[in-house]
Amino acid sequence: MKQYKILFFIADGLGDRPVRKLQGKTPLEYVDKPNIRELLKNSIVGLMDPISPGVVPGSDTSHLSMFGLDPHKYYRGRGAFEAIGAGARLKASDVAFRGNFATVNNEFIVVDRRAGRKIEEADDLVKELNEKIGEIDGVKVRFYHGTEHRVAVVLSGKGLTDKVSDTDPHEVNKKVLESKPLDNSPESQFTASIVNKLTHKIYEVLNSSEINKMRVSKGELPANIILLRGAAEFVELPQFESYTKLKAAAVSATALIKGICEQIGMRVVTPPGATGGLDTNYLGKADAAIELLKEYDFVFLHLKATDAASHDGNIDGKVYAINKMDEMIGRILDKFGSELVIAISGDHATPVEVKEHTGDPVPFLLYVPYSIINDVVNDFNEREVRRGSLRIRGLDVINLLLNYSNRAEKYGA
Amino acid sequence: MKQYKILFFIADGLGDRPVRKLQGKTPLEYVDKPNIRELLKNSIVGLMDPISPGVVPGSDTSHLSMFGLDPHKYYRGRGAFEAIGAGARLKASDVAFRGNFATVNNEFIVVDRRAGRKIEEADDLVKELNEKIGEIDGVKVRFYHGTEHRVAVVLSGKGLTDKVSDTDPHEVNKKVLESKPLDNSPESQFTASIVNKLTHKIYEVLNSSEINKMRVSKGELPANIILLRGAAEFVELPQFESYTKLKAAAVSATALIKGICEQIGMRVVTPPGATGGLDTNYLGKADAAIELLKEYDFVFLHLKATDAASHDGNIDGKVYAINKMDEMIGRILDKFGSELVIAISGDHATPVEVKEHTGDPVPFLLYVPYSIINDVVNDFNEREVRRGSLRIRGLDVINLLLNYSNRAEKYGA
Repeated sequence: MKQYKILFFIADGLGDRPVRKLQGKTPLEYVDKPNIRELLKNSIVGLMDPISPGVVPGSDTSHLSMFGLDPHKYYRGRGAFEAIGAGARLKASDVAFRGNFATVNNEFIVVDRRAGRKIEEADDLVKELNEKIGEIDGVKVRFYHGTEHRVAVVLSGKGLTDKVSDTDPHEVNKKVLESKPLDNSPESQFTASIVNKLTHKIYEVLNSSEINKMRVSKGELPANIILLRGAAEFVELPQFESYTKLKAAAVSATALIKGICEQIGMRVVTPPGATGGLDTNYLGKADAAIELLKEYDFVFLHLKATDAASHDGNIDGKVYAINKMDEMIGRILDKFGSELVIAISGDHATPVEVKEHTGDPVPFLLYVPYSIINDVVNDFNEREVRRGSLRIRGLDVINLLLNYSNRAEKYGA
Repeated sequence: MKQYKILFFIADGLGDRPVRKLQGKTPLEYVDKPNIRELLKNSIVGLMDPISPGVVPGSDTSHLSMFGLDPHKYYRGRGAFEAIGAGARLKASDVAFRGNFATVNNEFIVVDRRAGRKIEEADDLVKELNEKIGEIDGVKVRFYHGTEHRVAVVLSGKGLTDKVSDTDPHEVNKKVLESKPLDNSPESQFTASIVNKLTHKIYEVLNSSEINKMRVSKGELPANIILLRGAAEFVELPQFESYTKLKAAAVSATALIKGICEQIGMRVVTPPGATGGLDTNYLGKADAAIELLKEYDFVFLHLKATDAASHDGNIDGKVYAINKMDEMIGRILDKFGSELVIAISGDHATPVEVKEHTGDPVPFLLYVPYSIINDVVNDFNEREVRRGSLRIRGLDVINLLLNYSNRAEKYGA
């Protein structure tokens, strides 16, 4: 049986609800998509719940699930995945925290939980912290800057656990909290003591930093503490190739998605001009996928623009991004004709009038380059795919792709 | 985003099969339901398997599941839930048994496993037992009367387990069994010894009871023992508000359902005239739900009449109850217009010609008071909802309700 290569195209936040400005159509219904429509001649389609019906996915839990990794097993909290998104590459038993640059007075009372939010010097502050705090009691400490006031802090070493409480009091005019062990293990006691020493060390470094002196002299709040929350132990992710036998690569410009793909061993490419925004280099991403498909069995192509427009409530932007998405598919079809298995979906719905993720199911399309019983539908959108045969969960995706590319191994004899 | 209140309406045993007397229609197909049909203009519909496909649910396991609590985790046997249905409120590690009032001779040989079944004095016998047997070896003992000859016995104290065998020989002309430990733990040894002492104590109290002397003088069998079976340790149920963030109340007249709702912290209301039978106060229950919806985020409205008619094989009765059910929905819509998220389903099928629960999926409807892609179906019944988009499990219900009421928390980032 001929084995086909696989293109898996995710338009982030693709799913939507009827939009008044689009005459009650969803953006996917509104946009004419001649290239995707062409695929429908030999596709099975339907709805996918990235996690399970009604559960509102994050992009992290959803991608884990669609890559075949059950988030209930591998997702231990946002800390670890925020760190991955901020550039950290984690090892089993690393413990990661989400953190805010914040402002405290000399009694450790929180004056501003975000030190004014926009902190232009955040990268430099993180660099200074990494230089001046290498380790504490044998535990390696690394800092990563996310966006605005957000940082991730990763502890690596023996005897660590995520069973410790936050130092973030989650309110102003409260004192920075002591981290407490959340169970009776020596690991929690040890980790809490590291976190508390670290908090004082961070204050020491930041409060005497020249950068903060400059901020104060400009009338800005000093970013003189990091409030930590959401301790999460990283559970080592299996390597994608080990459980799929697929040589895999990804095209993405989004830090969190790139991080997840790298952690599971995919080669990750961000072509020039790819931004993760509406201004991204759509066809450049398609071309990058085309190049990778020459060498790899499986190429994951991630488009963030649809989600970015949705979070901004930018209806025209979402319509534009979906038009571009169809062009990307067209470009790939021009090169590969009907030689690929192609899946197209979203990692969750971000209805453009809601501006947040919702737990609605997302349309899913699976094109197969040989004769199958195809689902007879007229378009690829939230309404029309309900007439298709698929009603799957994110965890089913990889199995479907392996099956229809003739690469699945029999489960049993 | 506006957060909506939620009405969750369960008609017990609603699901059915084609009924000859109804020209091959199910009762739900047969009844014209103008109010529910109105909801279909903006609903998603489909089939729900309360546990999983083909599993025949009890009302207890089904309700646990629909309230978001996996029965495979929280349901340790009927004993505990029979006790709850008989009025007991349990704490973690209480051990409950199902029991029968029965008749033994003076050699402890079972003469009648139900002491004639109808035992008018059962409440008084239970009262006498509770007065005369307060505790045994430091273990608190409580008795509860169910229906007819059925009782529940609850043990509370330290060092108890449900790993002990029944005293019920399950046959007449056999001796009452000794309870035996089912593993090697000291807890099972201790619990078995309590159960055996308790059995003798029960005989002592009942055999010398004036009530039984009266029964014998009337030519009736004395209810002079309780045969125990189905030991079940109660697993503390999480509080509904803790995992849903919903302030919740329930309207029900059925002891088991009321018990489950109370155990998970809902406020429970039984309006005057609500009976759990066909003669219940249908509109009184709707009015009670309307009142509660003013104060609570989530109101569970339980109608038993559909199941009662089904168990009796009463086709006209089930048709009548479904007509009334539609009136109840109408009453609620009159008050709340389109301001509610409304789910309607059954906790299982009780086909009226089968007269018992079956594992068939049940129709499920979810009405949303804002624009969504609705499923285009003409009626709410077993046949028509198959054209809808939902094929869910009981455990998905709460997630769907939270999502579409805009109350869900994102799983991930």
